[in-house]
Amino acid sequence: MTSRPVTYADYLKIEGLLGLQAPKSTETGMPAHDEMLFIVTHQAHELWFKQVLHELGSVVRMFSESIVDEKNMGVCVSRLQRVTDIQKLLIDHIRVLETMTPLDFLEFRDLLSPASGFQSVQFRKIELTLGLQGGERFGCPTSPYVQALAASEVKDVLATAETPSLFVLVEKWLERTPFLDVEGYTFWKSYRFAVSGRIADDARAIESHPLLSPENKARQLQEIENTSRSFEALFDESVHASLVKEGHRRLSLRATHAALFINLYRDQPILHMPFRLLTLLVDIDELLQTWRAQHALMVHRMIGIKVGTGGSMGYPYLKSTVERFRVFNDFLSLSTFLIPRSALPELPPELKSRLAFAFNLS
Amino acid sequence: MTSRPVTYADYLKIEGLLGLQAPKSTETGMPAHDEMLFIVTHQAHELWFKQVLHELGSVVRMFSESIVDEKNMGVCVSRLQRVTDIQKLLIDHIRVLETMTPLDFLEFRDLLSPASGFQSVQFRKIELTLGLQGGERFGCPTSPYVQALAASEVKDVLATAETPSLFVLVEKWLERTPFLDVEGYTFWKSYRFAVSGRIADDARAIESHPLLSPENKARQLQEIENTSRSFEALFDESVHASLVKEGHRRLSLRATHAALFINLYRDQPILHMPFRLLTLLVDIDELLQTWRAQHALMVHRMIGIKVGTGGSMGYPYLKSTVERFRVFNDFLSLSTFLIPRSALPELPPELKSRLAFAFNLS
Amino acid sequence: MTSRPVTYADYLKIEGLLGLQAPKSTETGMPAHDEMLFIVTHQAHELWFKQVLHELGSVVRMFSESIVDEKNMGVCVSRLQRVTDIQKLLIDHIRVLETMTPLDFLEFRDLLSPASGFQSVQFRKIELTLGLQGGERFGCPTSPYVQALAASEVKDVLATAETPSLFVLVEKWLERTPFLDVEGYTFWKSYRFAVSGRIADDARAIESHPLLSPENKARQLQEIENTSRSFEALFDESVHASLVKEGHRRLSLRATHAALFINLYRDQPILHMPFRLLTLLVDIDELLQTWRAQHALMVHRMIGIKVGTGGSMGYPYLKSTVERFRVFNDFLSLSTFLIPRSALPELPPELKSRLAFAFNLS
Amino acid sequence: MTSRPVTYADYLKIEGLLGLQAPKSTETGMPAHDEMLFIVTHQAHELWFKQVLHELGSVVRMFSESIVDEKNMGVCVSRLQRVTDIQKLLIDHIRVLETMTPLDFLEFRDLLSPASGFQSVQFRKIELTLGLQGGERFGCPTSPYVQALAASEVKDVLATAETPSLFVLVEKWLERTPFLDVEGYTFWKSYRFAVSGRIADDARAIESHPLLSPENKARQLQEIENTSRSFEALFDESVHASLVKEGHRRLSLRATHAALFINLYRDQPILHMPFRLLTLLVDIDELLQTWRAQHALMVHRMIGIKVGTGGSMGYPYLKSTVERFRVFNDFLSLSTFLIPRSALPELPPELKSRLAFAFNLS
Repeated sequence: MTSRPVTYADYLKIEGLLGLQAPKSTETGMPAHDEMLFIVTHQAHELWFKQVLHELGSVVRMFSESIVDEKNMGVCVSRLQRVTDIQKLLIDHIRVLETMTPLDFLEFRDLLSPASGFQSVQFRKIELTLGLQGGERFGCPTSPYVQALAASEVKDVLATAETPSLFVLVEKWLERTPFLDVEGYTFWKSYRFAVSGRIADDARAIESHPLLSPENKARQLQEIENTSRSFEALFDESVHASLVKEGHRRLSLRATHAALFINLYRDQPILHMPFRLLTLLVDIDELLQTWRAQHALMVHRMIGIKVGTGGSMGYPYLKSTVERFRVFNDFLSLSTFLIPRSALPELPPELKSRLAFAFNLS
Repeated sequence: MTSRPVTYADYLKIEGLLGLQAPKSTETGMPAHDEMLFIVTHQAHELWFKQVLHELGSVVRMFSESIVDEKNMGVCVSRLQRVTDIQKLLIDHIRVLETMTPLDFLEFRDLLSPASGFQSVQFRKIELTLGLQGGERFGCPTSPYVQALAASEVKDVLATAETPSLFVLVEKWLERTPFLDVEGYTFWKSYRFAVSGRIADDARAIESHPLLSPENKARQLQEIENTSRSFEALFDESVHASLVKEGHRRLSLRATHAALFINLYRDQPILHMPFRLLTLLVDIDELLQTWRAQHALMVHRMIGIKVGTGGSMGYPYLKSTVERFRVFNDFLSLSTFLIPRSALPELPPELKSRLAFAFNLS
Repeated sequence: MTSRPVTYADYLKIEGLLGLQAPKSTETGMPAHDEMLFIVTHQAHELWFKQVLHELGSVVRMFSESIVDEKNMGVCVSRLQRVTDIQKLLIDHIRVLETMTPLDFLEFRDLLSPASGFQSVQFRKIELTLGLQGGERFGCPTSPYVQALAASEVKDVLATAETPSLFVLVEKWLERTPFLDVEGYTFWKSYRFAVSGRIADDARAIESHPLLSPENKARQLQEIENTSRSFEALFDESVHASLVKEGHRRLSLRATHAALFINLYRDQPILHMPFRLLTLLVDIDELLQTWRAQHALMVHRMIGIKVGTGGSMGYPYLKSTVERFRVFNDFLSLSTFLIPRSALPELPPELKSRLAFAFNLS
Repeated sequence: MTSRPVTYADYLKIEGLLGLQAPKSTETGMPAHDEMLFIVTHQAHELWFKQVLHELGSVVRMFSESIVDEKNMGVCVSRLQRVTDIQKLLIDHIRVLETMTPLDFLEFRDLLSPASGFQSVQFRKIELTLGLQGGERFGCPTSPYVQALAASEVKDVLATAETPSLFVLVEKWLERTPFLDVEGYTFWKSYRFAVSGRIADDARAIESHPLLSPENKARQLQEIENTSRSFEALFDESVHASLVKEGHRRLSLRATHAALFINLYRDQPILHMPFRLLTLLVDIDELLQTWRAQHALMVHRMIGIKVGTGGSMGYPYLKSTVERFRVFNDFLSLSTFLIPRSALPELPPELKSRLAFAFNLS
């Protein structure tokens, strides 16, 4: 109470903050008005990247416990929700930067070479914290990723790469789900039975249809056969394993089952928050993809088909990452394995009561 | 399978939909280009109003049960969340309509008189479903609200006014919360004790402070006194009652306690969803307020200080409703009664275990 | 070319930037997770404020010339447009900050006292650069505005207050418009004639109407009389002067005429950009008002009815500034004085040809 | 004045509008709550599509004149700007629809088969009005596009396909630009001279550099050589022609020159609006691409890798259209051909004065 009263400027370190915008074009004596926008937009990005890492880091910490405290689920969900809100804000940042025309960018573009957004350490750390694969490339001295960074930056990124990612931690948490096998009930068997029944019903309806032409019948039966085959990946460990090997899947089969269980029985009280969590992971992935697409488009617009400032961040490279760099694809693909609620097997009453709140039991 | 295959146009009734835009200016032989935008923006609003009523109606139904099924809480929360997403969309609709300039509006404005947005039945129903007070005015034949509408419309609005609103249903649900009084624990007593302790500590620290000037000391003690007084509304039934009488409060004291309990102990699993629900009610209120403000601003911009098309929807009237027509003010005001988590009394362990999931007990 | 190649981190001063977030709660040993969000949101605001000042400052410079170069109009318009894009982004920043709940804010709120957003120097400079009146209060040592700031900050703000604002410069530019009086044509006379004719036609139609009841007739005639009266402010210098004196108007009558001319005859090529410029000034005002409203609402939600951290920035104060602090109100109010295009007097052909491009003449 | 006073409900045909939502699941007796959202989102899209066609159609009409009236340029620009505002709104519609989960969609998805968004006639008309190539496929009875539609719909789309598109009309308007060849000045020659000079300077600087390694030198010279080669497409009619043949270009060389001239000399008053117009065409294209990407992503999320409801609108198809269906690519690619303002040849003073306003001459 006796210390000097805190001021807005001190607290937020305004003087320092507003002293960090140093346009290269000003140094050359030919200031380019729009370089300030370029700097501010990027610095704003980095501020928000720090915030995103702050949120993701706290969720990673809570999921690193051997048992995730149920009391933390609400907090985790609201922090991941905040990450998506920040992502939406960042997508709109790109629209503001696009108010700079290509001709105006040209006024200072050469002065920045070879600096590049490719060198954003925080962006790499966000990717790795989420669980983007390939972190080991930061340990390889000849990788362009490493060559683009300073030694201390590489060390920083590597440290993140070596920490269990959100993907890995969520996978482990899913694998620990105790509801998949309880006495007298195995989720995947119960679900396989339901799926088979549904498929058989469909096939029967087509075969016995009085009006369908033979070709039409054959085509529809083939479709059902395809559906049936695609479900094998869910029930047959070896099919799943070969999909993993070919790079089409990443999530373990047990974690996939747990995620599917959560999606299907989300209305059970204990699954409310886990369902929201899984949904938010897909949201984060989708928004990251949208940001990448928007960013690639902006680069295309700004510099045409030329190479980017870093020699590597041109439009084709950026475009190639848009879809390839999705992390939670396995969760997105779960929709392939859903069946309608009406066809869903009922949970055993005993299990059901254990998914509810304690209060109702007492 | 033998019926005519459904098409996009049939399913969405496209032909009907696209036949409903009938600019008045076209009838006069002097088509005003922007009248189409005016019509489409309003029709889009009404489509989304229908959706909002669809969502709110389903939540109202689930809260009309004598016991709200815990399994429905996830559904209610996601539907209210959707309402907020629609509200954000509608706020942006106004920005699109503002691309019409006042001069362009003037081309057809007189032709619409005396029609007015004031006559939107669905908007009235949204207000009443949420719980805006004053629904009885729709039963009064001389009310301007009634005179603006057709008899069938009045009947429709009145039916909504006579159905318990979301405010009322949530209030009742809160009043039923069983956690506020359990053997050996009464929330409000425990909380009053914590609040008093905190206030006494603060006062002591100021009184014994060696460096504060007498005036400063007096001022700060006065502030603490004010805080203490404001908390009386929370603990003293008669203070609360007089606030209700004066129109400063609407929510019953017991429901207020329950809402406060949910806000304070939100990390307990059973409170995760109730906390999100209460937060969403405040969000809906805030977004409705923002929509009203944005709409009033647009009207101001479009017609200056003249009266509105309905003779009553001019800027001053609209502006007056922005803040006055908040429904969930009592929930917003709860922040006045919070104390930091560190000063929060621990829940009795037995109560705590009953707020958790059954699974952990077994 | 021989200098050390520039890197992303050097150029954007990332290390410095990411070292500026120093939560008070961390100092106390009880880190509050959400304080980072609080800091980042405010720092992001200040970054964008710098950008807004950069844009406004450049427009102010171009309008400070005795003759505004027509070639600069496109640049001015696109920079003001960019300001509105930044404003929209900032409004969304508030929504992100609102993901912090009041209870979480309470964890560190007291530590910030008495710092306050009221002390943002750049915000004051934006207000004054636009033309908010009352800059002289920064010269008065007892003003709360001055007491909230450090001496150097006051000096900084005062310097802006003493520089001609955008409002003043645009007013002068409008007053210089050469089109209002050319040989044989005076805009305001031509317009008054058109307005009177329209009013007389309306009155005649009502008086001779066979079906209107006497009361209805009287009421409608009264309305026309009111309209006629309100137009006096446009044609009578003394009426305008007294409106200025009472604080209802600020813009000079000649500038008002020019702004009206631009609005009415915007389709003339030479008026395309001036019209967009005037529209953008109203947009900026509206978005600033929306930001203020949103900010006030957030403060209300966060701290209830308590006083703000600076002792002065509580909800009632903030709310009071929302509408009061509009700068370009006179431009907004122009819509009161518009008449439909069909009733608009044709410009003399000679004037028209001078409002076109030179190319068409040659 | 004697006719029945118009009401909100009559004017907007509310009763008709709110009677058009007929969920298929309701017919089956098992209403799926979220089908309403599905219908409303699509109907809202179609309302806005009508508005977009209304705006684009009016611009097409103004550009169909043999000389585009300069007075219309402001109107065209503001209408295209409005189209972009509507597009942003539609992108946000998708985010609202995504609040429906895949499991909820499954409740009614099969009932819609084989209806598909692929059958939206208005969407096809928007594509064709902008200038998407391939309209002739609507004349081919075996095309899937034709088979998906009713005969009357095909006729409707074909009529649009046979009307000159915005692309074609803008191309013709650009080709008519009179500024590219005036006495003593040919834009492309002047520009080629400037480009060559700049390239030669760069090459000289590298060759004579004392510190560059031979490999580095060779690499940089190669880059310059590539740049030089890429400019040939701009100056050599036959290079351009073969790019057109191979599908890399669509815009005629003369129109390309005009568009480049407008981009480079945009600060000349007569080019202010043309520059904004060209920018808006690229904006529209970019937003359409973003909408397609967002839509594809949503479909992926909703139905996984299964085929779409129409048998053809699955994720892979939708994704393939995202970038392929850009219309104004040639305008986007112009940034490849820009050189910095400082290197830009000055316009001859006589030409300059003809690009200004007549007023300044008199």
